[in-house]
Amino acid sequence: MARAWHLKSRPNGMPTSDNFELKETSLPPVGDGQVRIRNRWLSVDPYMRGRMNDVKSYVPPFQVGEPLEGGAIGEIVEGKADGFNPGDLVLHMGGWRDETVASARAVNKLPNLGVDPQKFLGVLGVTGATAYFGLLDVASAKQGDVVFVSAAAGAVGSVVVQLAKARGMTVVGSAGGREKCDLVRSLGADQVVDYREGPILKSLAAAAPEGIDVYFDNVGGDHLDAAFALARNNARFAICGMIAGYNDPKPAEFRFIMRVIAARIRLQGFIVFDFQSRMDEFYREMGQLVTSGAVHAQETVVDGLESTPDAFLGLFQGANTGKMLVRL
Amino acid sequence: MARAWHLKSRPNGMPTSDNFELKETSLPPVGDGQVRIRNRWLSVDPYMRGRMNDVKSYVPPFQVGEPLEGGAIGEIVEGKADGFNPGDLVLHMGGWRDETVASARAVNKLPNLGVDPQKFLGVLGVTGATAYFGLLDVASAKQGDVVFVSAAAGAVGSVVVQLAKARGMTVVGSAGGREKCDLVRSLGADQVVDYREGPILKSLAAAAPEGIDVYFDNVGGDHLDAAFALARNNARFAICGMIAGYNDPKPAEFRFIMRVIAARIRLQGFIVFDFQSRMDEFYREMGQLVTSGAVHAQETVVDGLESTPDAFLGLFQGANTGKMLVRL
Repeated sequence: MARAWHLKSRPNGMPTSDNFELKETSLPPVGDGQVRIRNRWLSVDPYMRGRMNDVKSYVPPFQVGEPLEGGAIGEIVEGKADGFNPGDLVLHMGGWRDETVASARAVNKLPNLGVDPQKFLGVLGVTGATAYFGLLDVASAKQGDVVFVSAAAGAVGSVVVQLAKARGMTVVGSAGGREKCDLVRSLGADQVVDYREGPILKSLAAAAPEGIDVYFDNVGGDHLDAAFALARNNARFAICGMIAGYNDPKPAEFRFIMRVIAARIRLQGFIVFDFQSRMDEFYREMGQLVTSGAVHAQETVVDGLESTPDAFLGLFQGANTGKMLVRL
Repeated sequence: MARAWHLKSRPNGMPTSDNFELKETSLPPVGDGQVRIRNRWLSVDPYMRGRMNDVKSYVPPFQVGEPLEGGAIGEIVEGKADGFNPGDLVLHMGGWRDETVASARAVNKLPNLGVDPQKFLGVLGVTGATAYFGLLDVASAKQGDVVFVSAAAGAVGSVVVQLAKARGMTVVGSAGGREKCDLVRSLGADQVVDYREGPILKSLAAAAPEGIDVYFDNVGGDHLDAAFALARNNARFAICGMIAGYNDPKPAEFRFIMRVIAARIRLQGFIVFDFQSRMDEFYREMGQLVTSGAVHAQETVVDGLESTPDAFLGLFQGANTGKMLVRL
């Protein structure tokens, strides 16, 4: 029997472990064009919180009583599809469970870049691609820019910091607590601000006295408002996430949004899946940065399928540095 | 003696007539390269409110005790500059007064488009250029788009409505009160919402049941939040003004800003002066639309230099339809 985490009830505000239930399920036999996969690594990501609400978004909502989904790396244990053999490592969306049967068309063999497989859930996966396309394409960040990155110790933020440094930018990162701030500094950030130490506006103004050219937003709320306040002319904001608001029913307040006009700010939301057609470019460029050591994969690993909801809930309590992963 | 309106004190919140003082000034003799201008038309614009604060912006602040400035159309009465002769009509920034002496380099003769001179303060001036470049360039609006325009009975908004219709777009305009809504309808808008009749979110949802592709923002606040809520994928917002916030010390609240991500909204602030180098294109394109009758100049005219502050204050009370002008 396989085991899979199901959505037991929809969270109201901050999710709790009561919203999740681990259930045994029997897998169907492997049909033509299908593969059976034993998962090795599961991804938990902030965007999954949105799918737990019953609202239309860029991905359909999870259904109550049904298994959850997410990125995963697994090993083929049985295959009836050309090009897939037992032992092959694959990237697929059947996460939150230990074993699954899937169409081979929904499964990708890992590119041969000579790196640990779980990196394809992080720095060489959706996380890294979010950093790469968000910074360089959506925000048009270039050498010499002053870049502010929020949640800079997080999965995406920690890649943004390193990528920006590798491309000759000045980087200000925000994080919560001394340990995370030390990590962000160790990644090469020029300035680090601890948002728990006081208003982010004040600390960002001190860290970037001449303002910012680019803001990579993972947080929203007060961080975004501080970026409005301190944007230089023609600043570009890539809006990747607004974790501050995911569980907060209060509307976000902005004192400085009007600076959008005088500073000619361009703010652009984006979804990494829109860049699917450019993944070859991403593997080439980011693969080189990872194998050369210019970009290190930051990971927080928890063990065991049982821990998956805790790993997910930890995302909203700042429990992770870098990419949060579950190892089976 | 000439007379000029001076900034007597800086407004705190909503300006009042006490902030302004009309004083006599003696003009200097006309030197080489200078002209003396008798003003015929003065422009009052919402952006002037920002210059009354003592803060750095895209134009320097007005100084207490000094004359105010603004766009004006006048007639040369004395000239010591090549190419300028008595009787020539010119566009210049020495408004809020009846007569001035200026460097000929800061003065532009009106293009010969065969239209009434005051149009160069409105539909063929900064106002019209704001509509033109904001809609077509900043928001990349194109045929078939659903365009939402706030303050659609105002100076800029009334031009945006007509320009969008001339270019084959579907237009939803917002305005306050039946009279203005009737005007917006008469300009060709497909749907008109009266923001005084109820929450703008609800009325915009009814007027644009399939959402909006473009938002031309003159208002900010609840209008901008409604646009976030109802934006279709890849919507573009041109942020021209946020008059709702100019006199309001409370931070703006946004319930739907997070949709920036899922809908991949692009929001861009702009200042028309950045398009100075493309004014020839503007005169050609908009001149054709005005002389052909596709775009009508909407104007509210008050008479006499004494009325200038009242005309300006009226901008924040919805006293104008179309461009607010003072005729001397």
